[in-house]
Amino acid sequence: MQELIKDSIMKHLANPSNIDVPLEALDDSAVIDDIVFTTDSHTVQPLFFPGGDIGSLSVCGTVNDISVMGAQPIALSLGFIIEEGFSIEDLDKILESIGKMSTEAGVPVVTGDTKVVEKGALQQLVTNTSGIGKRTELLDNNIFEVQRHREFNEKWLKDSNLRPGDKIIVSGYIGDHGIALLSFREGYGFESEVQSDIWPLNKMIALALKGGGVVAMKDPTRGGLANTLHEWAGKSKFGIKIDEDKIPIREGVQSACEMLGIDALNIGNEGKVVIGVVKEKAEDVLKIIKTTNEGKFAEIIGEVREDMTGVAMVTSVGGLRLVDAPAGDPVPRIC
Amino acid sequence: MQELIKDSIMKHLANPSNIDVPLEALDDSAVIDDIVFTTDSHTVQPLFFPGGDIGSLSVCGTVNDISVMGAQPIALSLGFIIEEGFSIEDLDKILESIGKMSTEAGVPVVTGDTKVVEKGALQQLVTNTSGIGKRTELLDNNIFEVQRHREFNEKWLKDSNLRPGDKIIVSGYIGDHGIALLSFREGYGFESEVQSDIWPLNKMIALALKGGGVVAMKDPTRGGLANTLHEWAGKSKFGIKIDEDKIPIREGVQSACEMLGIDALNIGNEGKVVIGVVKEKAEDVLKIIKTTNEGKFAEIIGEVREDMTGVAMVTSVGGLRLVDAPAGDPVPRIC
Repeated sequence: MQELIKDSIMKHLANPSNIDVPLEALDDSAVIDDIVFTTDSHTVQPLFFPGGDIGSLSVCGTVNDISVMGAQPIALSLGFIIEEGFSIEDLDKILESIGKMSTEAGVPVVTGDTKVVEKGALQQLVTNTSGIGKRTELLDNNIFEVQRHREFNEKWLKDSNLRPGDKIIVSGYIGDHGIALLSFREGYGFESEVQSDIWPLNKMIALALKGGGVVAMKDPTRGGLANTLHEWAGKSKFGIKIDEDKIPIREGVQSACEMLGIDALNIGNEGKVVIGVVKEKAEDVLKIIKTTNEGKFAEIIGEVREDMTGVAMVTSVGGLRLVDAPAGDPVPRIC
Repeated sequence: MQELIKDSIMKHLANPSNIDVPLEALDDSAVIDDIVFTTDSHTVQPLFFPGGDIGSLSVCGTVNDISVMGAQPIALSLGFIIEEGFSIEDLDKILESIGKMSTEAGVPVVTGDTKVVEKGALQQLVTNTSGIGKRTELLDNNIFEVQRHREFNEKWLKDSNLRPGDKIIVSGYIGDHGIALLSFREGYGFESEVQSDIWPLNKMIALALKGGGVVAMKDPTRGGLANTLHEWAGKSKFGIKIDEDKIPIREGVQSACEMLGIDALNIGNEGKVVIGVVKEKAEDVLKIIKTTNEGKFAEIIGEVREDMTGVAMVTSVGGLRLVDAPAGDPVPRIC
């Protein structure tokens, strides 16, 4: 269905050529007139879960989608669609967590809209958060640093920017959000050790840019790390090779994945970023990220390669495994 | 419920003071760093109705909300939440009408998001459209013209800008959207003569600004003309007096309202704008608007008054009727 939708959308909504990062790029955000602009609807179920709720998810998802383009998020919009009779106490809790995350990120909600629909027309509540961001000197300086090491003619940190030799950093444990949600929903019991990683990454990302040499960033949400790497490999037209032993995975997530027969690489995250950096700066950027709470378990997990296409992983036992592009996320209504 | 939500939202999401038009203003759009930003979720039922569908509604609502601030809309986002099994043909029709209206307005959809939820979790499909707009020389020149006639220290066309003497223009027939929808839904039969007025107003609004002297604009959607005038009167702290004989109402809408016992002033419109203009320029602006197809039935319907508060109407028989602030829109799921 997603494929059909994508075809249908692209057929009718082709963008004019003056747009820096158009709809067709299917990147984390669009860029027009140096304004970074993104949108996300949230249908997560249940609304409250270990480590977060639909409110924190709404704020962080959008803050992160803007930040990974290399921009500074400056404002959010918030749309609610609410089923009649929804608990005002729960709504208040959701708004409280929106307020908290917005304050944490330093990005205000400046405009909103609320629609109430009759009972039965919607399961509880869904949200939409859009956001805008702007170019900063930090991004300009980061790009200048990239250009000291290799040719680079881009203004934004797009999915298509990776080149052979670039190193790939993951900012911390993967799979936490999806496993926390799935386990809580199904009662598997892993949620005692695994909580969602929902967090606004704009401050950590600003530090990474200060390090310099960053060519691309992406938050590995639906479809997880595997999806991010495939988007990058496909749009950049080079292969990516990663090292299984380097990928930070929490023990509880690993056990849950083994028990459930799902691949942690395919599971959505909400507080992680994957960073492509010129090789000369990879260790510097890693070191800076590791000074932050949200990035203390960051690792360099691989690199971009000219001698292959797609995504491959050197396994713990030394073999080479092809990493498939996930068809979707194994956990439904994850965000 | 709307009141409770508003209180709850304001409590948690107070805006910092550096925002030109903050959340608290509850205006059509917010303004931050000279970027105009707005959002609307759409839950209209049925999805297709005489004169439009949820697609055209999504585009026009957002284009108009940006335009009435005096800005030029430059880009839209589009979020879909779709019930599993929703007809791809219908989705394609909706996207086609989004494409058409986006082309008509000259405002591209640059970013989007699609979530599919399981059957029964949502009735068919809802959308969210956010949009951004920018300041233009047209707005600066319009404000300069206002300043030739009276004191005016505002950068944007806000709800609070009205002052005694300002004239009120309505750009055409009111109530069409609500009556078309209600009649079609309930099978009253008025829809043969009344169609929704959904239309992007940015081009007509640009012409009005060219005329000069515009101090405020608002699209009278939910709660209709009465709601718009009450918002203006309340935020500007002056009264508004209108003339019943001057208000453009289509005969079919008038009959429908009489039959159904609802007030056309309270019914939502999707292709109309209410314009506050300094009195010296009101006739000029009216004349310009009347040259357009979307504004050919425009009229000056009243003025801002110092000697009263709230909204009052001189009736056809010469009496004075207080116009109540509508509690909501008499037609549910109108947009």
